[in-house]
Amino acid sequence: MTAISMYEASVPTFIHTLTSLKTILQKGIASAEARKFDPAVLAGSRLYPDMLPLTRQVQIASDAAKGAVARLANIEPPKFEDTEATLAELVARVEKTIDFIKSVKREQIDGSEDREIIIKTPRGELNFKGLVFLRHWALPNFFFHVTTTYNLLRHAGVDVGKLDYLGGTLQG
Amino acid sequence: MTAISMYEASVPTFIHTLTSLKTILQKGIASAEARKFDPAVLAGSRLYPDMLPLTRQVQIASDAAKGAVARLANIEPPKFEDTEATLAELVARVEKTIDFIKSVKREQIDGSEDREIIIKTPRGELNFKGLVFLRHWALPNFFFHVTTTYNLLRHAGVDVGKLDYLGGTLQG
Repeated sequence: MTAISMYEASVPTFIHTLTSLKTILQKGIASAEARKFDPAVLAGSRLYPDMLPLTRQVQIASDAAKGAVARLANIEPPKFEDTEATLAELVARVEKTIDFIKSVKREQIDGSEDREIIIKTPRGELNFKGLVFLRHWALPNFFFHVTTTYNLLRHAGVDVGKLDYLGGTLQG
Repeated sequence: MTAISMYEASVPTFIHTLTSLKTILQKGIASAEARKFDPAVLAGSRLYPDMLPLTRQVQIASDAAKGAVARLANIEPPKFEDTEATLAELVARVEKTIDFIKSVKREQIDGSEDREIIIKTPRGELNFKGLVFLRHWALPNFFFHVTTTYNLLRHAGVDVGKLDYLGGTLQG
């Protein structure tokens, strides 16, 4: 019998989809090489002029994942400096994020469903309990920035498909 | 003490983000009216020529949500005919999807973490247990199509922001 718990509902999801994000970024690098343009063009791409570029989408996906896990575990997340400028550096950022998330133990997160979590937004402070934070804020926010990264690459003609996003190791 | 269970990890998430999808589509309708173009242009929009248009993104988000809930509950999901051609019809589709999901009871879904679930993909059949299905397939797939809908509207200059996607009723 599998137990469902806050750990089971969070950590494996972040690791699984961050691994897909790595694959998607690597396809971006390969596509720029094959089509002979600077992959920095992809790193700076946007779907609309006032939107954040791909670089920031990946950094925010990373922050969303490590921030969620850290908040649920009631620890400080590692601070990354947001200096990545290339897709290769973004891949390394995703790897560092996965490493941190893997370092958090089941017992640090299990039982966090009622933990008080405060998020500051442009519209003011939001007070969540751990479970509502996870499902109404952390997971939607994380998937948003991973999918937007995918869409930026798709829009640029990179040969990514939904199965790259859903993950190659689906039985895991 | 909040209990975390398969119901708590699935149904409220789908309802929350489908409600946001409705808001986002309604902003698309309002934007087309304000800018005086046919909202059907948005319904047919794509980020790349071989990508599915917005209409299909919403239909698939609906199918992902109702399909996931039905599979976890081990019941047949309602079949919708995919005849929507306008944003207003897509809003109605999202509402019907929410109605179905709300009709499924906690006790139909709780305990489904080990239920065998088979998904047919272009790369063959995938066998999941309920919990892995939810976190590695159903939720990522659902968020993917909602976010892609958002990105299509964003790309078309509709005034949507991330807080529309994250939801107006964040404490719920």
